[in-house]
Amino acid sequence: MGSTLSQLVNHQVRLASRPVGMATAENWRFGTEPVAEPADGAVLVKTLVLSLDPAMRGWLNEGKSYIPPVGIGEVMRAGGVGRVIASKNPDFAPGDVVSGLLGVQEYCQAAVGVPGGRLEKIDLKVGTPAQWLNVFGMPGMTAYFGLMDIGQPKAGETLVVSGAAGAVGQTVGQLAKIKGCRVVGIAGGAAKCDWVVKELGFDACIDYKGGSVREGLKAHCPKGIDIYFDNVGGDILDHALAKLAPKARIVICGAISQYNNTAPMQGPKNYMSLLVNRARMEGMVVFDYAARFPQAIAELAGYLKDGRMKSKEDIVDGGVAAFPQTLNKLFAGENFGKLVLRVAADD
Amino acid sequence: MGSTLSQLVNHQVRLASRPVGMATAENWRFGTEPVAEPADGAVLVKTLVLSLDPAMRGWLNEGKSYIPPVGIGEVMRAGGVGRVIASKNPDFAPGDVVSGLLGVQEYCQAAVGVPGGRLEKIDLKVGTPAQWLNVFGMPGMTAYFGLMDIGQPKAGETLVVSGAAGAVGQTVGQLAKIKGCRVVGIAGGAAKCDWVVKELGFDACIDYKGGSVREGLKAHCPKGIDIYFDNVGGDILDHALAKLAPKARIVICGAISQYNNTAPMQGPKNYMSLLVNRARMEGMVVFDYAARFPQAIAELAGYLKDGRMKSKEDIVDGGVAAFPQTLNKLFAGENFGKLVLRVAADD
Repeated sequence: MGSTLSQLVNHQVRLASRPVGMATAENWRFGTEPVAEPADGAVLVKTLVLSLDPAMRGWLNEGKSYIPPVGIGEVMRAGGVGRVIASKNPDFAPGDVVSGLLGVQEYCQAAVGVPGGRLEKIDLKVGTPAQWLNVFGMPGMTAYFGLMDIGQPKAGETLVVSGAAGAVGQTVGQLAKIKGCRVVGIAGGAAKCDWVVKELGFDACIDYKGGSVREGLKAHCPKGIDIYFDNVGGDILDHALAKLAPKARIVICGAISQYNNTAPMQGPKNYMSLLVNRARMEGMVVFDYAARFPQAIAELAGYLKDGRMKSKEDIVDGGVAAFPQTLNKLFAGENFGKLVLRVAADD
Repeated sequence: MGSTLSQLVNHQVRLASRPVGMATAENWRFGTEPVAEPADGAVLVKTLVLSLDPAMRGWLNEGKSYIPPVGIGEVMRAGGVGRVIASKNPDFAPGDVVSGLLGVQEYCQAAVGVPGGRLEKIDLKVGTPAQWLNVFGMPGMTAYFGLMDIGQPKAGETLVVSGAAGAVGQTVGQLAKIKGCRVVGIAGGAAKCDWVVKELGFDACIDYKGGSVREGLKAHCPKGIDIYFDNVGGDILDHALAKLAPKARIVICGAISQYNNTAPMQGPKNYMSLLVNRARMEGMVVFDYAARFPQAIAELAGYLKDGRMKSKEDIVDGGVAAFPQTLNKLFAGENFGKLVLRVAADD
């Protein structure tokens, strides 16, 4: 086994410098490393797919957040799914499929048990590797706990979700339908909006690129918005604030419209609607709910199995070298479904 | 009685036009009316004191809010305390002291039972007429329910309140101290800050006119802010957002810094701190808690009686004619304590 590993080369993407605005080629450095035997207690994972997430942009900035920034020169942080190819940890065996923070690289030495070294064994009978980065991964968990714990949907209420065709939005909307809500999506482009309504069963979807969000919310939310699940921030958050129903809940999940800003963040100027409507705006971080992930995954797996829920992944081939342009595709809103980078075929 | 009433003249202040920015003399019209016998079911109230509230500025704007705007030509809306001088309602007798929306006028024909015609009998043994507009009135009720229901203070937590020497802030801070919080005020000027610390017992008070709020919060909230009770909005809200502790609660009570803006409202650009800190920002409207006012008043009256709480009113003489300049004093932050206009001595 040792001799086999030593023939492998690990291609990696490292952070070369901190971007100002959208990341460019100069912010990244490609490198290679030999692949070594795992150290005692560690496992060696071959990356199959990597997750591209809006939160990645925040990790590139200096400064305190819910997680430290990626350091200059470090392998770019990324969640992924891979297969264990060597193990010196009794809990993992070669052949196990795992998810965790593998980083943008082909092979990951996961020092299980240290911070960031957490690996979860996953079951490919429940979903594909890409689905394990989507509905059964962080986006799905964010959707589930953001909606259920913060949004607290009640049958008959109106839910609006931005980024409706994206990783979090698709699950939020479908889950809210299952819970009896009227569901209105906001997405960019007719194709996404059609899909959200026809395939996912949303009641309506507003195309923010093709029309007025304000008019769309007026038309599709005649009784106001009870829950707004916000993935985008910016003007769309303000339009939603202006249409709140009494006792509304806004789930702050992200603000992708603002992440590449070089100007100061745009604050929601209609926030006093919270007062007028006795409404609430609340943030959530998915890691807080880790102990309840298995229960949520089981519930979502049931919906996918019985056909009440679908998942869509936008899988880009090209390996780790394609990471920089794939990340920018995310911020341009060009992905259609959860954006995933395929690093290796699972063979 | 009829002949006495007919000799009285009712001086009134009416809205002449909607202000742009701060209200000016041209926005108001002074008028007089004869005083008539109350109609069947109504009572005639002689105004003693009127409440000047930040919310008044919002009532001057066209557009939907939690309460309709004051119409052009109408008597300016104002809460007040007065004495019943004639009654055709079996629930009220001459001599009763009442609070309600009396309007900026010397005599009010209160059509009890119609919207806006609600009168509450009050007990001057509990507090003075001015205190019934402060700690036992809407500001006190706002402080009580905003803190207890939305803020949900726990002993040992750090609470920050803006407008700390104002009507709502003084009660919020003192009540939070009683509930075991570390309390940091924000107020304008050394005199107010000294009073808040030395007389009201706050742990610290930051003078936003004399120094940096950011530095002050850093110095006085070493463990971050668990509850921020916001009366002012604007930059101070942003500074508070930047210092939130995990699971913090922001009570949105007002945004006095923004009410006279002619530019668009300034949104809180640090609102993504809600996500990072899993925090919540929630609005409240005091009228929702009306059924529980008696219980809150009883609790607050106990604290005032046993000396654990104080109240401060800034009482301006000059009658209804002084209303326009007194209102602007409020927005300039020149009041020290709850701003009250005395309309008549209680004799």
